[in-house]
Amino acid sequence: MQEGPTQMNDRLVRACRRLPVDRRPAWIMRQAGRYLPEYRELRAQHSLLSLCRDPELACEVAMQPMRRFDLDAAILFSDLLIPVAVLGVEFDIVENRGPVVSRPLRDAAAVAALEKPDRLDRIGYLFETIRLMRHALAGRVPVLGFAGAPFTLASYLVEGGASRDFRRTRLLMHTQPRVFTDLLERLADLVIACLEAQAEAGAAAVQLFDSWVGCLSPAEYRRHVLPATRRAFEAARRRGLLTIHFGTACTGLLPLMAEAGGDVLGVDWRVPLADVRRVFPDRAVQGNLDPVALLAPAESLAPMIDAVLADAGPAPGHIFNLGHGILPETPVENVSLLVQRVHAAG
Amino acid sequence: MQEGPTQMNDRLVRACRRLPVDRRPAWIMRQAGRYLPEYRELRAQHSLLSLCRDPELACEVAMQPMRRFDLDAAILFSDLLIPVAVLGVEFDIVENRGPVVSRPLRDAAAVAALEKPDRLDRIGYLFETIRLMRHALAGRVPVLGFAGAPFTLASYLVEGGASRDFRRTRLLMHTQPRVFTDLLERLADLVIACLEAQAEAGAAAVQLFDSWVGCLSPAEYRRHVLPATRRAFEAARRRGLLTIHFGTACTGLLPLMAEAGGDVLGVDWRVPLADVRRVFPDRAVQGNLDPVALLAPAESLAPMIDAVLADAGPAPGHIFNLGHGILPETPVENVSLLVQRVHAAG
Repeated sequence: MQEGPTQMNDRLVRACRRLPVDRRPAWIMRQAGRYLPEYRELRAQHSLLSLCRDPELACEVAMQPMRRFDLDAAILFSDLLIPVAVLGVEFDIVENRGPVVSRPLRDAAAVAALEKPDRLDRIGYLFETIRLMRHALAGRVPVLGFAGAPFTLASYLVEGGASRDFRRTRLLMHTQPRVFTDLLERLADLVIACLEAQAEAGAAAVQLFDSWVGCLSPAEYRRHVLPATRRAFEAARRRGLLTIHFGTACTGLLPLMAEAGGDVLGVDWRVPLADVRRVFPDRAVQGNLDPVALLAPAESLAPMIDAVLADAGPAPGHIFNLGHGILPETPVENVSLLVQRVHAAG
Repeated sequence: MQEGPTQMNDRLVRACRRLPVDRRPAWIMRQAGRYLPEYRELRAQHSLLSLCRDPELACEVAMQPMRRFDLDAAILFSDLLIPVAVLGVEFDIVENRGPVVSRPLRDAAAVAALEKPDRLDRIGYLFETIRLMRHALAGRVPVLGFAGAPFTLASYLVEGGASRDFRRTRLLMHTQPRVFTDLLERLADLVIACLEAQAEAGAAAVQLFDSWVGCLSPAEYRRHVLPATRRAFEAARRRGLLTIHFGTACTGLLPLMAEAGGDVLGVDWRVPLADVRRVFPDRAVQGNLDPVALLAPAESLAPMIDAVLADAGPAPGHIFNLGHGILPETPVENVSLLVQRVHAAG
């Protein structure tokens, strides 16, 4: 890690390590995003990819929620797909549709044609954004980096974009397991290179998003996904990064996801936090307010926040977050309420 | 139940009761559907709703797969939303989009304005289809009826159609729990009336599809969904119907779904059948081949069928099925392979 200012707020780092904290840390997935008017203003002038690719703009976006709310981490502003540029994959991000990969990968030849992850300079702006964020934060809170986990990245590359059922990905996995493994191992190499460079730039911790892995059975996960994912976590750990392992709809996969790695297990609202803490006493836990709760009026929202706090139990080893990204239509004042209420609970 | 020919093939019924069978029964969700060329031919001339609303055509469609494959049940050809017409709800089914509800229900007034489920004659064609099927089947195999479970029906009525995240449904549940409960209880009344009339028409068993309930946490299910669903299962049982309780992505909800009811728990490929049998020894189990497996060449498909059989264990108390509806692009010969292989396994 680069030399830099001492961290004044180390609650997130302490929570990852399950150490006592003066108050429970909170951050919000997509905390820099469309629910903020100042973000929408920037997006009116720049595409999402233009923002990601310009370190000064990306840093500005990442800092927007830090000015409004007393959040305990600033998260890198980027997109899950950005790193695949290093492998020579071309994609765009289309309004209301998400990532669109120009030539989806669906056979051995397409996977074999991927470049090795040597050209990290193609996404140098990502690491520069982290450096600028550290400077802007001046040690106030840590910078949280992130990457897509190999399966979730693979799902975009194989489907060619977002998907409801990931059927092409699962078909490739079933019918050409060696090609699928080759793809996941290449993506693990990419993720590792990307996380190491994020550590180098000054990220204190990283979240690995395996957002879509919940479409698999435990047997499928164990055979086809776990080895590549574990390798990514092991590399991050060797590099000194604290890690959050996040997935949605993953109830049946949690033991295997824990085996793959992560100082923290990040879960959505479907998974009771008390269960996670009981079953995985050696991990911290992150989550898990339903993002829909933030669309509710304060009198409905407050008890839902309290229910998450009660379910999570004592503060040490809990990072408060949503169960998935904040919704664009979320009223800003509900985010203030959330952060204040979590912190006031001690 | 109506008088009718004696059932020659009672494997499905015996499996529901966990009795010994001469071979394991198999049927396929959406076995009458777009993967069949003869179905596509009919659909070229008639909309989906026209087929559902014409008992002779609906019966013909339901019988199409029975002529090709040695299936152990014929399932009513209909649509989950059909019964809501009884409550006065208007909807259409739009190609490549699914159901579209003309005026989605999003407040107390809209729910209060629903009619009582007295006018079952509005969907008399549904019960007539069952009668025609029984006649056409002449006792060869039982007719399986079905209905949407209250939550899944509610999700269509509140969202106005299909949804990725059911956010309006969950928002209503969180912010207006009494309105949500009112809606679910009204839908339970409808489901009960509809299942009773299906029993009367000669269905031997019914599947309750709670396809989308997997978006909820156990606490949400227990409080907001379980009571209405349990009431529907209790009524079906009193009426002498055997019941299959089906959901997708439901790993964390299974204990509560079992509490709500069902002689059979129907699960998708995410849930290991061996786990279901171990945890719920007093239930039969249905599933759970990944529909994607049927897109694979025979040499990949066969071991996946065998894996389901191995996971399910001994035949008594297992109904072979997919984990969700068969995909339209499925090659017909793969369905033959599936049915033959399951039956050959004994």
